[in-house]
Amino acid sequence: MSPLTFGVAQLNPVIGDLVGNCDRLLTAIQEFAAKGVSLVITPELSICGYPPRDLLMSQQFVDDMETAIAILASKIPSDIAVIVGTVCPNPDAAKVGGKPLFNSAALLQDGKIKQVFHKRLLPSYDVFDEDRYFAVGHGSQIFTLNFKNGDALQIGVTICEDIWNDQKFWDKRNYAEDPVAELTQNHALDLLINLSASPYAVKKQKLREDMLSHSAIVHNLPLIYANQVGANDDLIFDGRSMAFNRDGKMIACGKSFEEDLLVIDFGSAAKPRSQTLGLWGYESDEAEIFAALVLGVRDYVRKCRFKQVVIGLSGGIDSALVAAIAAEAISSKNVLGVLMPSPYSSEHSITDAIALADNLGITTQTIPIQPMMAAFESSLTNIFAGRASDVTEENLQSRIRGSLLMAISNKFGNLLLSTGNKSEISVGYCTLYGDMNGGLAAIADVPKTRVFDLCKWLNCTSSPLAIKSKSGFDNAEIIPVNIITKPPSAELKPDQFDQDSLPPYDILDDILDKLIHQHFSEAEIINSGHEQAIVERVVKLVKIAEFKRRQAAPGLKITDRAFGSGWRMPIAQQA
Amino acid sequence: MSPLTFGVAQLNPVIGDLVGNCDRLLTAIQEFAAKGVSLVITPELSICGYPPRDLLMSQQFVDDMETAIAILASKIPSDIAVIVGTVCPNPDAAKVGGKPLFNSAALLQDGKIKQVFHKRLLPSYDVFDEDRYFAVGHGSQIFTLNFKNGDALQIGVTICEDIWNDQKFWDKRNYAEDPVAELTQNHALDLLINLSASPYAVKKQKLREDMLSHSAIVHNLPLIYANQVGANDDLIFDGRSMAFNRDGKMIACGKSFEEDLLVIDFGSAAKPRSQTLGLWGYESDEAEIFAALVLGVRDYVRKCRFKQVVIGLSGGIDSALVAAIAAEAISSKNVLGVLMPSPYSSEHSITDAIALADNLGITTQTIPIQPMMAAFESSLTNIFAGRASDVTEENLQSRIRGSLLMAISNKFGNLLLSTGNKSEISVGYCTLYGDMNGGLAAIADVPKTRVFDLCKWLNCTSSPLAIKSKSGFDNAEIIPVNIITKPPSAELKPDQFDQDSLPPYDILDDILDKLIHQHFSEAEIINSGHEQAIVERVVKLVKIAEFKRRQAAPGLKITDRAFGSGWRMPIAQQA
Repeated sequence: MSPLTFGVAQLNPVIGDLVGNCDRLLTAIQEFAAKGVSLVITPELSICGYPPRDLLMSQQFVDDMETAIAILASKIPSDIAVIVGTVCPNPDAAKVGGKPLFNSAALLQDGKIKQVFHKRLLPSYDVFDEDRYFAVGHGSQIFTLNFKNGDALQIGVTICEDIWNDQKFWDKRNYAEDPVAELTQNHALDLLINLSASPYAVKKQKLREDMLSHSAIVHNLPLIYANQVGANDDLIFDGRSMAFNRDGKMIACGKSFEEDLLVIDFGSAAKPRSQTLGLWGYESDEAEIFAALVLGVRDYVRKCRFKQVVIGLSGGIDSALVAAIAAEAISSKNVLGVLMPSPYSSEHSITDAIALADNLGITTQTIPIQPMMAAFESSLTNIFAGRASDVTEENLQSRIRGSLLMAISNKFGNLLLSTGNKSEISVGYCTLYGDMNGGLAAIADVPKTRVFDLCKWLNCTSSPLAIKSKSGFDNAEIIPVNIITKPPSAELKPDQFDQDSLPPYDILDDILDKLIHQHFSEAEIINSGHEQAIVERVVKLVKIAEFKRRQAAPGLKITDRAFGSGWRMPIAQQA
Repeated sequence: MSPLTFGVAQLNPVIGDLVGNCDRLLTAIQEFAAKGVSLVITPELSICGYPPRDLLMSQQFVDDMETAIAILASKIPSDIAVIVGTVCPNPDAAKVGGKPLFNSAALLQDGKIKQVFHKRLLPSYDVFDEDRYFAVGHGSQIFTLNFKNGDALQIGVTICEDIWNDQKFWDKRNYAEDPVAELTQNHALDLLINLSASPYAVKKQKLREDMLSHSAIVHNLPLIYANQVGANDDLIFDGRSMAFNRDGKMIACGKSFEEDLLVIDFGSAAKPRSQTLGLWGYESDEAEIFAALVLGVRDYVRKCRFKQVVIGLSGGIDSALVAAIAAEAISSKNVLGVLMPSPYSSEHSITDAIALADNLGITTQTIPIQPMMAAFESSLTNIFAGRASDVTEENLQSRIRGSLLMAISNKFGNLLLSTGNKSEISVGYCTLYGDMNGGLAAIADVPKTRVFDLCKWLNCTSSPLAIKSKSGFDNAEIIPVNIITKPPSAELKPDQFDQDSLPPYDILDDILDKLIHQHFSEAEIINSGHEQAIVERVVKLVKIAEFKRRQAAPGLKITDRAFGSGWRMPIAQQA
């Protein structure tokens, strides 16, 4: 193999697990060394995993990182160089004013840390708070990689956001400086590398590819982009590390949503777009989102040291989708579905839930909630005397179910997944301490219309579950068709349907998309063609549901604006 | 009155209520004008209230602020100038790279906006995310205030953090630049003003006074500091606006935890420390913390448009303290205490809770939970067959109580206050969806040892509740003495005491203080004199309770490191 091959260690770190992460890095480096790779590139902060958040405020943790990287450096094989993401102390912090750390990349070679490079552009938007921890980097961003045959390469090092400020590509500046432009203007580089931890969002990969290809062309420079893979709390990292030649053609691409050790040889031919797409591509947004959510659930379960999950199965479409995701993520045998019918439950809510469980191969338990309803009702008779039934009694049913699920979670040590979708969490059509209960909200960033699309897609013969299914239907049935076709209902009182309380979901989701994602004003949403009364009501509902969202479980993020760590709204407000 | 008097409008804004906030500002300005005040200074972002957080991402909201301030400017009386906190668009954002807004102060005079000044130092630590919204300010920070008699004053304008970077005072730089030093070096100023929204923390006022006095002396300049008052979600702003003469002596101080229209005449004599302390001072940290928490509860209730609260009264000290805070905040008649005894409840848990309610004058309801316990137990018999009782059954009791309290909250429209203290929230000695239920966690930042201190203080004859009490005891009894003296117990199983599961609270709280506030490592805490096994256990408990804290209600912040918006820890981690 040529001495000019590069490796990208697209690994899935556990946040804070310095020893484990370094072990996995070392194994990858050794594999690359065996293949004759000259330089290995890891994702951003690969020593500790991204994002470490306030763990960085512990001096001990920072010291431990320093120790871990020194040990790692001492163990790497000779004849290979490694660029690892880590933090470095900012020795001048107190003197010049600035945060105490840099977000850095360290060059490990010959058993030691040969050089460090610091990130210059620190994102402070959405889920990113890098200004909270890091000083703006300065100093050299290049190094020389020497080869035994006398060749040498000048390599420029950037970290994630550093490469996201090409004024021509964005048609604006996001930051005052463009580290890539400065690097290429001031140095005759042979290669540009970028260590990233770029979270997944629908449609983002196309943007990344276009941007990176543009940068390669503009700067006439080959480019390697190493991205983290794996999910950490609400964030899903999709991997898909890439290499581009100086013509902006992709010549290598890592797997999507999976670890990968990507070997890059710039001598290799550019891949046609269709082929590169095939490497990470999915037939549809639904296929890609499903893969993302599967990874999100799998990693949260694993990294929180659970083995099994429990899900309340209502016979509705949300819990059906979550059960399917969980079954794919951690195998059917580790998923327990719990049916908790009430006197208001329809016959089909039971049969549909059982049919779903059969299709997925998951175990179920059934616990009717009427006895608890009766006990609460009787105990509250005096204090509620003279007051009509209202949402209180509906919420109680939801809270009884939530308490049963948590009891099962506590007793058996399995993780409760909550099943609320983005539409209902937006408008508060959910019960705090009831159906919102759970350690992870698997579809909290998926609007209801997309929940339907995902379930329909799951029933396509090409979906991963359909392929595994032994159902033998001509059209695979993973999600029982009745779950998809029946009108959504919370079944908390007789003849109740979502659409009695909410606008039709296609209308609701379009309003929510304009409000939340496109930052439209109320007037702009109305002008776009929606009924004024409906828009006003939805906007108001979104505002007053803030107190519920604040206490929601972390929700897997699949869009550029999810509730959770990137959504910071006041509760007590009158805007 | 001299033409050289100044006014500080120390007001309590509602976040986002632009019309209401401007109305209150105008009323204050008119009062100041009637008193002959020349210049009125308001707190930071006084048009929208601080912190507006992601409301600033709505272009409509920003436009509305622009409209509101133009209307306000058109209404202010002639002969008075006003400096109001607002945002300004950053017109060069896309061109130079930067956030789209400035955090600004606008000079309103002669019916219009005469000049704007932008904040330069943007905090990004603890609860502050200003880099998320604002560009670093530039441009003039001075204006000339002309008087009819021909006099003129050169006034320097700074906003909050701008004044918190005196290298000598802090013995380090917090930021690269010191706007105060630059202002005073480059201009012959007559006065320095600072618009602030500085949240309360125990011991912080002394620090502020020392720092501002130092700045006045170092720059030989009179100084006016206008601070916001009022609580917004988790943050309590304590007011205490101040003026210092060029000798660093305080000559005026606004009220603590209350709105105030402070008139400042630099001709007046400096106040002796004891007297200025008397203006905002409290006899003890306990007295001050109680006042802070009372404001926190009162404002959250009011700004979320509730009138009444409901609290679960266990007969324990935490709920007793929260009930006392609520009674003082919104009056006893608006507080409902609910007793929910179980078969494990002691006799004293009932009698103590009733005695407390009597002392405070609050109504109670009693709902035994045994019927719900029996219903859950029976319904779970099959699925739990062969498994011993454990924490599951304890949590169920807590969740039954939490569901009852939420049912009452839903039915009567009162706000549920949760009663967990900082010690138990730290180590997870609390039940998610159970006793953690509530819209606001009133004492979430108060360690258990301080809960005891606060209750003992409440029983001092000088406490506000004791003064109001008609109990006629020699030693006022607000909190029944037995609540303070009995050993803490969750009473979730027979003969259960907190100290069976946790170290003694004085030890636990000292370990937690070193871990959370002083950022000690495990080894450093052990070296400080604590038993290794205990420290290791506490550190581990704090880590694994993160999932509970993530779903906790907003908790009133009274320290420099509270759980909530300023605490950002990963859940899935192995540090």
